[in-house]
Amino acid sequence: MNLESLAAELRGFVGVTRKKQIGELISFFPIESKQIIASFGEDAAVIDDGDEVMLFAADGIWSKLMDADPEWSGYCSVLVNVHDIAAMGGWPVAMVDVLSAGDPEISRRVLEGMKKGIEKLRVPIIGGHLHPDTPYSALDVAILGKAKKNAVILSSTAQPGEVVIAAYDTDGKPHPQFQLSFDSTSFKESSVLAQQLGAMRELGESGLVRAGKDISNPGLLGTLAMLMETSKVGAVVDVDAIVVPEGLTLAGWLQMYPGMGFVVTTRPENQEKVLEVFTRRGLTARVIGRVTDERRLIIRSGEEESVLFDLARECVTGIH
Amino acid sequence: MNLESLAAELRGFVGVTRKKQIGELISFFPIESKQIIASFGEDAAVIDDGDEVMLFAADGIWSKLMDADPEWSGYCSVLVNVHDIAAMGGWPVAMVDVLSAGDPEISRRVLEGMKKGIEKLRVPIIGGHLHPDTPYSALDVAILGKAKKNAVILSSTAQPGEVVIAAYDTDGKPHPQFQLSFDSTSFKESSVLAQQLGAMRELGESGLVRAGKDISNPGLLGTLAMLMETSKVGAVVDVDAIVVPEGLTLAGWLQMYPGMGFVVTTRPENQEKVLEVFTRRGLTARVIGRVTDERRLIIRSGEEESVLFDLARECVTGIH
Repeated sequence: MNLESLAAELRGFVGVTRKKQIGELISFFPIESKQIIASFGEDAAVIDDGDEVMLFAADGIWSKLMDADPEWSGYCSVLVNVHDIAAMGGWPVAMVDVLSAGDPEISRRVLEGMKKGIEKLRVPIIGGHLHPDTPYSALDVAILGKAKKNAVILSSTAQPGEVVIAAYDTDGKPHPQFQLSFDSTSFKESSVLAQQLGAMRELGESGLVRAGKDISNPGLLGTLAMLMETSKVGAVVDVDAIVVPEGLTLAGWLQMYPGMGFVVTTRPENQEKVLEVFTRRGLTARVIGRVTDERRLIIRSGEEESVLFDLARECVTGIH
Repeated sequence: MNLESLAAELRGFVGVTRKKQIGELISFFPIESKQIIASFGEDAAVIDDGDEVMLFAADGIWSKLMDADPEWSGYCSVLVNVHDIAAMGGWPVAMVDVLSAGDPEISRRVLEGMKKGIEKLRVPIIGGHLHPDTPYSALDVAILGKAKKNAVILSSTAQPGEVVIAAYDTDGKPHPQFQLSFDSTSFKESSVLAQQLGAMRELGESGLVRAGKDISNPGLLGTLAMLMETSKVGAVVDVDAIVVPEGLTLAGWLQMYPGMGFVVTTRPENQEKVLEVFTRRGLTARVIGRVTDERRLIIRSGEEESVLFDLARECVTGIH
């Protein structure tokens, strides 16, 4: 395997590079409320609410996806938001949306997709806003969830010495109109998806994981880099341990949004238990590396090694 | 006064007509969760949470406003969301945003405006999403609030026989680049705005009002029509009782977003107490009409009378 060319391809991959402006954004938003336990850098913000916490996140649908397939973009708006809550060890409560639609036909198709997502993932949309007269189409969805306070899984808490576990559903295929989107969910029963999403809640409530995120547009290693950056640590990943779905290449898979996937860290003594939870719930889970105190994300294959991101010098999210 | 021409102008006013597609939207979103106490048609959805409720709303900034003045649109994105929570008798907790920005300079100006809103209204933005590579600029914000369960003010609970009270801050002026936006807030102290916004919480917790909304883009009577439609009632409004800020015409004022304003209904025996709460908190409050069981919004001036909206035959929001 040519690790250097894999690293170069992943570094230039748009799913990673477009995240860089987040850091700048945050400088505008000082947070003074003591009720806010965690915010930027997490999949969802965490708000104190007694024995529970409220989880709060928003995701916009990338205009490229919306142009490629309005139904799929509507469906994904639900899927990614539900993942943001699941990744924190919580359960979703409800969503609100803002739809800007110039073309009534695109609008209808986006809504059909959202409806499918709502039915499949069983989280209601309970309010929002419609702009029927925009010169563009856009869809933003925000989600509210809850979690037990002592069960929250953060991105900022990974520690050197822990192992990195990736878990995802390999039973799927790239979406026909959008090759960066792997669909493992739209053709499955609600109950199967609920089992898979519930893995993180079980892991959070049993205290088995130390940090975690859902795998989003930057792909498995881009998401891991964000986790490392937020936790101010690094990692060494053995790319040979990464399971690639049938018919895809490793480089291709690492640039995909996997539909249903998480990356977590855990102490080595708990790794078997974590793998068991993911496996029992229908996800393919593997230890793919370990957390280090050097702020670099290094990929390895056999004797070869390459620095994918030097997190001490460059930034992925810009959050430090 | 030519009431017919006033009615015709208000009926055609874009702030009202663009709301009509909301009803169609809702048909896509069946809600099965028993935890959801109220949703579409309310300024914020209401979610059961023990002795309290969670309030959840989203608002997008109209692209016309964003083009006219990016700072002001960022500021308003905070202002309108905070009003959605205040209108329900609750208090705001936090916001998340999705910003789509093609032009980094527009982006920066929008963020400056949001920052001013956050500082002025003291509600943090704790997460969200940034699309740095869109061919358009758009800003959507969602807000989470809480309220005591027995203090929630809904839009769907107005009853015939109640009086209609409008309350707003007349100390302001139209925004220079956007004449439909009345600015009474950006130059005032945070503590003054907190006092004004707190009026609805005080009224909700004391049980003095029966229904209410914040006055939004459809203006005072457009907002009242939405409240009537959601409550399946009508109203007769004496337009001579409507206080118009200095330098504006009645027709102009009725088409403006007032910056800080609410319309509520209350039993006649409580009207003085409601007026006292609004007045003590710095808002100009007047009884402007009464709720009827005929589903029409009628405006009156002296002996003249005109049907502004026939809510039994036409729809404002499309929510029935």
